[in-house]
Amino acid sequence: MDRHRPWKTLTSREVYKADPWVRVLDERLELPNGKIVPSYHRILLPDYSMVFPVLEDGRVLMIRSYRQGPGEIVLGFPGGGIDAGETPEAAARRELREETGHAAASWMSLGAGLTGANVRGAKCHMFMALGCRKIAEPHSGDLEEQELLSLSRDELAAYLQENRFVILAYAAIAARALLEWKNR
Amino acid sequence: MDRHRPWKTLTSREVYKADPWVRVLDERLELPNGKIVPSYHRILLPDYSMVFPVLEDGRVLMIRSYRQGPGEIVLGFPGGGIDAGETPEAAARRELREETGHAAASWMSLGAGLTGANVRGAKCHMFMALGCRKIAEPHSGDLEEQELLSLSRDELAAYLQENRFVILAYAAIAARALLEWKNR
Repeated sequence: MDRHRPWKTLTSREVYKADPWVRVLDERLELPNGKIVPSYHRILLPDYSMVFPVLEDGRVLMIRSYRQGPGEIVLGFPGGGIDAGETPEAAARRELREETGHAAASWMSLGAGLTGANVRGAKCHMFMALGCRKIAEPHSGDLEEQELLSLSRDELAAYLQENRFVILAYAAIAARALLEWKNR
Repeated sequence: MDRHRPWKTLTSREVYKADPWVRVLDERLELPNGKIVPSYHRILLPDYSMVFPVLEDGRVLMIRSYRQGPGEIVLGFPGGGIDAGETPEAAARRELREETGHAAASWMSLGAGLTGANVRGAKCHMFMALGCRKIAEPHSGDLEEQELLSLSRDELAAYLQENRFVILAYAAIAARALLEWKNR
């Protein structure tokens, strides 16, 4: 018996919606073994792109700002929602420009992942932007001012190893990017 | 002016709830600059623990299973919700035992992060379990059978570098753990 067949969605009921921010689905599922799951929640959030920006001098450009999720001031990376018709990489370029005023000489994908294994959540697209330099003033249009700062590679590695990131996606892109560097 | 004061929550209305799986809050916020945000969503999901299990021979123990979030069969790590009164590390030990039948010789924290920067989501607690050996048969009680397999450190590094993880938390713990190894 193949233990890995997909589950079957028998019914999917939208129980909450606030366009374009969140949709909550309450689904009735049938497993491959015939078992019925009467109520299983999925939460659909907008996909977004996130950037690990490396400056021309090799330091990493970061953002310090208040985030409502943890309710505290955190150190993180530029990023934001993907506009309609925009590719994830185009969104990454735009967010880097808007939030930091920087442009990159080259880009590479660091993969994409869903923030929820069971509920789905959002898909986070991660990019490394190399050779970043300032071309304009930031004008993010976001709700709050953001403070730009830069860390050396060693400072960032220490920050990660001391488990100081409070947002999972920031830890993910930092670890993925540092590993990429070490593999070269 | 301090640009990094917290936002003020003026009202918080619960617009959807399915205990214990999900709570959706629609909040009215006031920013430090006085601006009012009339509707800002927060989504509270149960916190969970996740384990990066290293076997006695140095290979990494992983799980292949169908996940409803992406709607596909994925490679990942053991983990699950934290029971009432349980510490994150105790939940990690229990999930490792239940899902894989393994126990570890020693444990270390790889940090914790929220799956949402704006909405909060769940807090994911990451642990590295060293010297894992099989002590029983798995009996996870989860909805589906799970296939256990192991990867060498190089195989896992290649899997990560090829951007093959589809769940962000799995990529995060893999990158964080591989980096920890390289730092030793």
